[in-house]
Amino acid sequence: MKADLNMTPRELRHLIRTGEFTEPTSGYCPGYAQANLIILPKEEAYDFLLFTQRNPKACPVLEVTDVGSRLTKFVAKDCDIDTDFPKYRIYENGIMKEEVTDISSYWRDDFVAFVIGCSFSFESEMIEAGIEIRHNTEHCNVPMYMTNIDCIPAGKFSGKMVVSMRPIPYSQIVKAVTVTATLPKVHGSPIHIGDPSMIGIKDIAKPDFGDPVTIKDGEVPVFWPCGVTPQSIVMNVKPKLAITHAPGHMLVLDVKNVSLKE
Amino acid sequence: MKADLNMTPRELRHLIRTGEFTEPTSGYCPGYAQANLIILPKEEAYDFLLFTQRNPKACPVLEVTDVGSRLTKFVAKDCDIDTDFPKYRIYENGIMKEEVTDISSYWRDDFVAFVIGCSFSFESEMIEAGIEIRHNTEHCNVPMYMTNIDCIPAGKFSGKMVVSMRPIPYSQIVKAVTVTATLPKVHGSPIHIGDPSMIGIKDIAKPDFGDPVTIKDGEVPVFWPCGVTPQSIVMNVKPKLAITHAPGHMLVLDVKNVSLKE
Repeated sequence: MKADLNMTPRELRHLIRTGEFTEPTSGYCPGYAQANLIILPKEEAYDFLLFTQRNPKACPVLEVTDVGSRLTKFVAKDCDIDTDFPKYRIYENGIMKEEVTDISSYWRDDFVAFVIGCSFSFESEMIEAGIEIRHNTEHCNVPMYMTNIDCIPAGKFSGKMVVSMRPIPYSQIVKAVTVTATLPKVHGSPIHIGDPSMIGIKDIAKPDFGDPVTIKDGEVPVFWPCGVTPQSIVMNVKPKLAITHAPGHMLVLDVKNVSLKE
Repeated sequence: MKADLNMTPRELRHLIRTGEFTEPTSGYCPGYAQANLIILPKEEAYDFLLFTQRNPKACPVLEVTDVGSRLTKFVAKDCDIDTDFPKYRIYENGIMKEEVTDISSYWRDDFVAFVIGCSFSFESEMIEAGIEIRHNTEHCNVPMYMTNIDCIPAGKFSGKMVVSMRPIPYSQIVKAVTVTATLPKVHGSPIHIGDPSMIGIKDIAKPDFGDPVTIKDGEVPVFWPCGVTPQSIVMNVKPKLAITHAPGHMLVLDVKNVSLKE
């Protein structure tokens, strides 16, 4: 089976499960929500769940799996946490040790998986509203940046927010805000519009995650809170072990964006 | 100091702290959010926090205090969890043992307090929209009912949803839905409109909590998820100890409703 933007989420997950699809998922399954991942041992799960409650713009939780369960119960059927993301990152003591396409061999009975909303979800709504998504046009991953914005600490977890960036023409900025604001469970409205230095980004051409994209004359960089934030937190707090998705390589859910508007 | 509907939240909390005000708080400090309470030992806090994540309509969390801290950090300043609700309930093994106006003598260093949004918050918005709030007009507590609606279980916690009821004229039902839907952090839109038996309520004249109110000809009972739901869960699951507010006797926060619309 070959990858096709209009596959069903289940078809795409099955293709990913075979190991044949390891690309970023932006643009796939338009209308369906996509999700970030962080897996932690149960002993750290309370502090992290509290962290998400205190930082809902960066970490809007769509599902937390039961302890030790690799299957999602609410956001998708027939969905394996350990195989259905195209790419994962293994963090040991805050350092990224490895990127893999399957984490079955790492799985432990005390793991809890946090499935967190992703801004790829609202891109199809932006496209319908007539807004170009530059990283789709340029066939690359969305640019993501570390910022100087402090998350609200919770227990052992603290650190800076990560943002994703999309260049938007002046005439469409209001539309970009209002369209995304209707979807708070996949990050919602932007956190910053304009001057990158205001949020601690030194060089817009050098994203910390993903790829750079062209910002044309008459366009403004617009920044949304990003579900890679947990990775920034992991790098800061250095827990013994954490497993995340690789930035841009998301889980595609059975849940439609419209159902997240309730 | 005498109670006055237009006191500031801080003034009302201070009056409550003296023990001189022990009434329901509906109608007080219009425009400011009010909150429900459940306190559990830390060992049960993860399961309950996950329960709130899975049941956000009934249990929209506004703040979870740090372990052992009686002070709120985010929703109000100078706010003592153990004195600033007009009335509390002590549940032992799922049975309500006592109603008290101060829980200082019960406080333990392993307590975690969940401050949960309350539908009293949106009543001032309904009033501004021209909707009468019957329990205010009749100077009593809002009627609340146990239902047959299952909450989504999480860890050890499971049970039925509690709802609050306001009679609404047919001509204002849509308005009541749209006004409250803008405030998901204080329960948001109704869970049911009309026939009480559809959600397992046998006698609308006999609420399980609070007081009955008149339903006039041409009015329909409209039901919102209620922050007394944790008490239904406690009665079902029977944890050794849980402390809650007494239904209708809420904490008034410094947070305005408008700031919860973001």
